[in-house]
Amino acid sequence: MTVFDEATAVSRRSETEDAAGKRAASTGVWLYDAVADPRFALVAPGGTTPPAVNGGALLATVLRAVLDCSPHPHPVATSANFLRVPQLAAAEVQVSWLKHGKTASTARATLIQDDQVILDTTVTTGTVPGGPVRPGTSAADGAAESSQPLDWTGERPPFPALDECLDLGNWPGSVAADGTAGFPAQVEVLLDPACTGWRGSQPSGVPEMRGYVRLREPRDPDALFLALAVDALPPVVFGLGATGWAPTVELTWHMRAVPAPGPLQVAARCRHVSGGWFDEEAEVWDAAGRLVAQSRQLARVGRGRLRTLANGSASSLRPESAPSQP
Amino acid sequence: MTVFDEATAVSRRSETEDAAGKRAASTGVWLYDAVADPRFALVAPGGTTPPAVNGGALLATVLRAVLDCSPHPHPVATSANFLRVPQLAAAEVQVSWLKHGKTASTARATLIQDDQVILDTTVTTGTVPGGPVRPGTSAADGAAESSQPLDWTGERPPFPALDECLDLGNWPGSVAADGTAGFPAQVEVLLDPACTGWRGSQPSGVPEMRGYVRLREPRDPDALFLALAVDALPPVVFGLGATGWAPTVELTWHMRAVPAPGPLQVAARCRHVSGGWFDEEAEVWDAAGRLVAQSRQLARVGRGRLRTLANGSASSLRPESAPSQP
Repeated sequence: MTVFDEATAVSRRSETEDAAGKRAASTGVWLYDAVADPRFALVAPGGTTPPAVNGGALLATVLRAVLDCSPHPHPVATSANFLRVPQLAAAEVQVSWLKHGKTASTARATLIQDDQVILDTTVTTGTVPGGPVRPGTSAADGAAESSQPLDWTGERPPFPALDECLDLGNWPGSVAADGTAGFPAQVEVLLDPACTGWRGSQPSGVPEMRGYVRLREPRDPDALFLALAVDALPPVVFGLGATGWAPTVELTWHMRAVPAPGPLQVAARCRHVSGGWFDEEAEVWDAAGRLVAQSRQLARVGRGRLRTLANGSASSLRPESAPSQP
Repeated sequence: MTVFDEATAVSRRSETEDAAGKRAASTGVWLYDAVADPRFALVAPGGTTPPAVNGGALLATVLRAVLDCSPHPHPVATSANFLRVPQLAAAEVQVSWLKHGKTASTARATLIQDDQVILDTTVTTGTVPGGPVRPGTSAADGAAESSQPLDWTGERPPFPALDECLDLGNWPGSVAADGTAGFPAQVEVLLDPACTGWRGSQPSGVPEMRGYVRLREPRDPDALFLALAVDALPPVVFGLGATGWAPTVELTWHMRAVPAPGPLQVAARCRHVSGGWFDEEAEVWDAAGRLVAQSRQLARVGRGRLRTLANGSASSLRPESAPSQP
């Protein structure tokens, strides 16, 4: 079992173990035990800023609980609101089904610590196409499941070859005092060199990130790993000179197909930044060239200083200094 | 008061009127009375298919309740799950606040009829920039509110002049037997002629819709009307030959700025259709040229027959016939 699978594991409470005395399953509420695992920490304990766990790992944890009690196999639509910074500690996942349908079922699922909602989600499960891509066909291989013959995909964004990309590696603060390595030790993010200027002092001036995402351990991508991959790249606003942690407020992602084995290609862009808010929308393509997931999030611009752009245009500088890594 | 404002009105129940005997406001739950108004029906009563109200009008109704009890003025992020077809009848809106923050507050808000959740939403409120656009400036006019100087916007999609566009007008089934006219009598949708081939028998082959959206009554756009505008165009898959009602499963939209007076420009596109699912993402630009809203939805392809595309490419035909209007 990989560290990712261990860190996102959930354990269903039996009905009689429900502390509130409810018969969980029969009331449509399912309860699970989980842990916000330090091995997916973005910021490890013991540093100068509070520890924080990658939101995608938490989302995968919640989805594992949802899929455990879902009548359908795939999380086709997941909306997540990140309300509070999680502790690196035990958590409870509550799943309440709002509707069970033939094509789709919808649940509300929350990750709770100390009676506070950390992550609030709404998840619709259903069935998406899977299996190998057949280029040139106009009828989806999902047609048999849905009896819908329409199949269409927009153009794939250009990606450089994997071996031309740059492994972001560990960043300061992601390894704890006891040696426990966090998120970057588990997830390999290989960035298009055109998107890496912010690592020095030359942000590209374009709010885009592109690259490959895979676990460092051998493990094929699935729905749970897609939930992490949609937000695995550095914030797109780093390309505009922003620095520091850019907290996600709301993120919605749609699973569009079962991914083929191999590294995922992720392309993220932004359309608008103002008032401290920015959007980031990502597409995830699998190794077989299929669009497997889409996401959009609304996030806050980090409070670090603004870097001067590579083209020399003026950026307003803010007095604070802050870590330049996410 | 316009029909839109009447149809989306909510009436807050006083604490003592709460039927459940709860002190509503003090428990963080707010209750409102509302109506799913036949004047925003897509399909009027008395036809061959069940009556249905435009989802955007219902969303505006829910948001009116949320904003009534919100500490912040704007719905910056709204995720909506359309669970059941609403009756043209009275409804209750329940608003439960999950978090009150300095920058953002988050509520869960549901529209309920006959004890069933029709529309389930999560709404984050905050403050977005407003006022006139100042082209060429790099610091947002929202900077004073957020102390964040970063301001950036992507390229605006091309729109034809308003007077070159085509008023979709009423469609069969949108006027009730008693003469009550529905959605198209309230909302003017002026479509780019390049996107109208599906109205005859020549779909463009491209899943895009572009046009202008405004109320037929004189009324400036605001957050509530944006909630309707993001899904006011015909389904993008009509451009691929699909027909019939394309029910939204999940829709998330972000408010990015307070819109200027005047008609809204809405551009919608799709990235992927398979297994009966399609995505539709819309941008809304105001009359001052500002990006004011973004949305993405996951929806089901209508069950009507597939039309042959304008380029003559083969489309699989399905045996059923169905109304060709939304």
